[in-house]
Amino acid sequence: MIPNWLIQRAHLTPDKKALSFNGETWTFEQLKDQAMTLARKLKANELNEGERVALLGFSNAEMVLIIHACMLAGLEIVMLNSRLTPKELDWQLDDSDAVAVIVADELQHLISNSSTRQLPFSTIRQSDEQSFQIQEIWDSNRTITIMYTSGTTGFPKGVRQTVGNHVSSALASVLNLGLSDDDVWLCFMPLFHISGYSILARSVLYGVEVKLYDKFDAVAAAEEIRTGSVTYMSAVSLMLEKTLHELEKDAAVAHPSFKAILAGGGPVPVGYLERANERKMPVLQTYGMTETSSQTATLSAEDAIRKMGSAGKPLFFNQIKIKNSQKSGEIGEVLLRGPHITPGYIGRFQKTNPFEEGWFPTGDLGYLDAEGYLFIVDRRSDLIISGGENIYPAEIENVLAGHPSVREVGVCGKEDAKWGTVPVAFVVISDDVTAAQLTDYCAERLARYKVPKKIYFVESLPRNGANKLVRRQLREWTEAQQ
Amino acid sequence: MIPNWLIQRAHLTPDKKALSFNGETWTFEQLKDQAMTLARKLKANELNEGERVALLGFSNAEMVLIIHACMLAGLEIVMLNSRLTPKELDWQLDDSDAVAVIVADELQHLISNSSTRQLPFSTIRQSDEQSFQIQEIWDSNRTITIMYTSGTTGFPKGVRQTVGNHVSSALASVLNLGLSDDDVWLCFMPLFHISGYSILARSVLYGVEVKLYDKFDAVAAAEEIRTGSVTYMSAVSLMLEKTLHELEKDAAVAHPSFKAILAGGGPVPVGYLERANERKMPVLQTYGMTETSSQTATLSAEDAIRKMGSAGKPLFFNQIKIKNSQKSGEIGEVLLRGPHITPGYIGRFQKTNPFEEGWFPTGDLGYLDAEGYLFIVDRRSDLIISGGENIYPAEIENVLAGHPSVREVGVCGKEDAKWGTVPVAFVVISDDVTAAQLTDYCAERLARYKVPKKIYFVESLPRNGANKLVRRQLREWTEAQQ
Repeated sequence: MIPNWLIQRAHLTPDKKALSFNGETWTFEQLKDQAMTLARKLKANELNEGERVALLGFSNAEMVLIIHACMLAGLEIVMLNSRLTPKELDWQLDDSDAVAVIVADELQHLISNSSTRQLPFSTIRQSDEQSFQIQEIWDSNRTITIMYTSGTTGFPKGVRQTVGNHVSSALASVLNLGLSDDDVWLCFMPLFHISGYSILARSVLYGVEVKLYDKFDAVAAAEEIRTGSVTYMSAVSLMLEKTLHELEKDAAVAHPSFKAILAGGGPVPVGYLERANERKMPVLQTYGMTETSSQTATLSAEDAIRKMGSAGKPLFFNQIKIKNSQKSGEIGEVLLRGPHITPGYIGRFQKTNPFEEGWFPTGDLGYLDAEGYLFIVDRRSDLIISGGENIYPAEIENVLAGHPSVREVGVCGKEDAKWGTVPVAFVVISDDVTAAQLTDYCAERLARYKVPKKIYFVESLPRNGANKLVRRQLREWTEAQQ
Repeated sequence: MIPNWLIQRAHLTPDKKALSFNGETWTFEQLKDQAMTLARKLKANELNEGERVALLGFSNAEMVLIIHACMLAGLEIVMLNSRLTPKELDWQLDDSDAVAVIVADELQHLISNSSTRQLPFSTIRQSDEQSFQIQEIWDSNRTITIMYTSGTTGFPKGVRQTVGNHVSSALASVLNLGLSDDDVWLCFMPLFHISGYSILARSVLYGVEVKLYDKFDAVAAAEEIRTGSVTYMSAVSLMLEKTLHELEKDAAVAHPSFKAILAGGGPVPVGYLERANERKMPVLQTYGMTETSSQTATLSAEDAIRKMGSAGKPLFFNQIKIKNSQKSGEIGEVLLRGPHITPGYIGRFQKTNPFEEGWFPTGDLGYLDAEGYLFIVDRRSDLIISGGENIYPAEIENVLAGHPSVREVGVCGKEDAKWGTVPVAFVVISDDVTAAQLTDYCAERLARYKVPKKIYFVESLPRNGANKLVRRQLREWTEAQQ
């Protein structure tokens, strides 16, 4: 039993700032009032409590209001990724069996699925209102959001996230990060992704402000951090690097009231962490996924330097172990347990049990050190096995990212007649450097078999909606260039 | 599913300070190691997982270790109040059916119950150790503590408090108060009482230090607050007043890093709040009871002045309503709902359902104002009905406590031939004042029927183990003086 988030929050701190976007701000009372109006309009459009809708929009204030309206109306929300192709969206609409897709007018062209009812934002805005009985108490087991896994590996699965999942995730995080009345969370992450949605959930549960942008803006990020107008920001490595780059231009440092960047979506190269340290900008490496409703482990600020490269320890309500591992340091599949983990999937994977003997297998490779800190070695499916040696792409990426001329790097395996697979690297460079120079740089720092056999210079790297590197795409490029 | 508190905390922040007492300090790792040793000694004394033990001791470091040892060993703990008489303890031991009573050697004389096995602290200390399989995960519904209601009214009932009750109470509180890494909780409250035990629970769940004293010391309290060596203190009105009195002697103010006194156990006289304001010492009025595993409502710091006298709003996971009330301002019984509320009782009240239609009736009288703030008017059973008019003792106490010569005051009803009942007051004074002067003072501020018909000067007021005023005792005094 959990109180209806926004109703309770608006009751407790009505006048506190909840959201700012594009110069406009909303208090929790205003957010509730406007979301309730939209909820009544959804009802007038014959969307009934317990039904499942899909939602496709931009990460803006209207989207925040519609997300809250859906929650108030008791709907399950399938969060659609606006960077997907019509074909991919079509598949998710079919799989989810949503009764309608609520869609920003500008994105209607992405919906080709004719069997799902379309409800454009403009139609909702112009609707009548129909009053309804609000649910003051939510069941912890109620599915509130469904997100299709980002698809960096395998087939997309519609992951259920319950009220209890989101609440326990937010509460476990607060025990790790602490909480102040004046916290402000800077959100550049897409709201359809758990990294963005979880910021909205924390805002309402904690009673703190979200400063939302509709897309990543490194100049704005650097400015917010330098002036201390925000206290937290969530980011992936790429965003962290670009923000650092902006701060470095003016040799600027983070404002003392800025608390931390939470960096997730894959390991952060050590070079970035060192650069952030020079900018006096604490970076907390986090580890989590759609199935864990955001963070499952986070490195605390006090350990940021001593345990650089670690994803930290589990959050309070969670546990981590390594499959078949007998002692610390052994690499194996990372297994998780805790109240934040999805009870399961919808659609085609509805009957798939996400647990093995009570533990959730992540598919990621890692180890726990002697003090119990988690180190993610790699996504298991990205493992390169070359001449019988295991090679983790992230290790090579870490090295290349430390080269002064390298802005971004992605490594994958490429088929090789002699070794089975060999590592190759795709790099985005900031100034002139040759492939031979980069290869030499690696050879000084890596065992011979880990040195990329080929270096490709590219304009940008393939990334998914959450800005995570899509290594599968790199492998396709490799094949094309064979 | 909640991880074993101390095991998880010691895993996450082993080197953080957990406890200080009498100049000694313990980290969470040390606390765990020492409590585990004691847990093995309990096992060697044939106390088995799931069994119920009673515990009687002082509020000192050894008691903290034994409480944790019992929890680690999987025992249910009946927290005995060391200020009870042997007869009262005897009753609770019988009612609880505890397999043993673990007792500080110095308190053995209080145990007259011959049917319950006694296990003095010294016996445990000298025991062998027996290893056992630690439970890494606790069921939320597991009863972890049992506390007999303070008995200010009626018959003592053994209240069950589950893992989930304590965790949801601590988490709801953190969403209201915030949390910093350097928080330190000053504990003068007895550990057998929910106000003291809940500080231990928060310490382990939050990873913050408890600074424990074995009894209240106003000079020490004032010093800790003035120097900022602690950030929070829990207190009842009496302790607040005595601390203020010490600060006032030197015209001292609270250190800026001191965050708040949480004042519970009954309404705080407005005069104390005003004096605290002058000492720059934030006071958060709280409302809670044994059945709610500590706070259920708390007035936030920002509302302390504007809503002076209110117990605030419910904590995030809780809800409050007034029985049979149609609109704000109407006085009625306070009803509560939330995951912090006891599932029920043990012993003689085992079959009593604490809920009425899903809500827990507190027996207290109060109202919600137009903004939803709770005002506790009085304990229902203390209501004085005089000539058909309802009189709330706390209202009269509030007035008298504002008189400069009055240190403490307790009001109760006394039988009267004409009016049925009339209010009378017991006062502890700090300098010379006559009954007539106090009566005049009241007459200026209260309706005639509320002015105490008799004022008794006493050395001290009757208080229970939690320092709460025992009005039942006042009524007995009244009868004796008839």
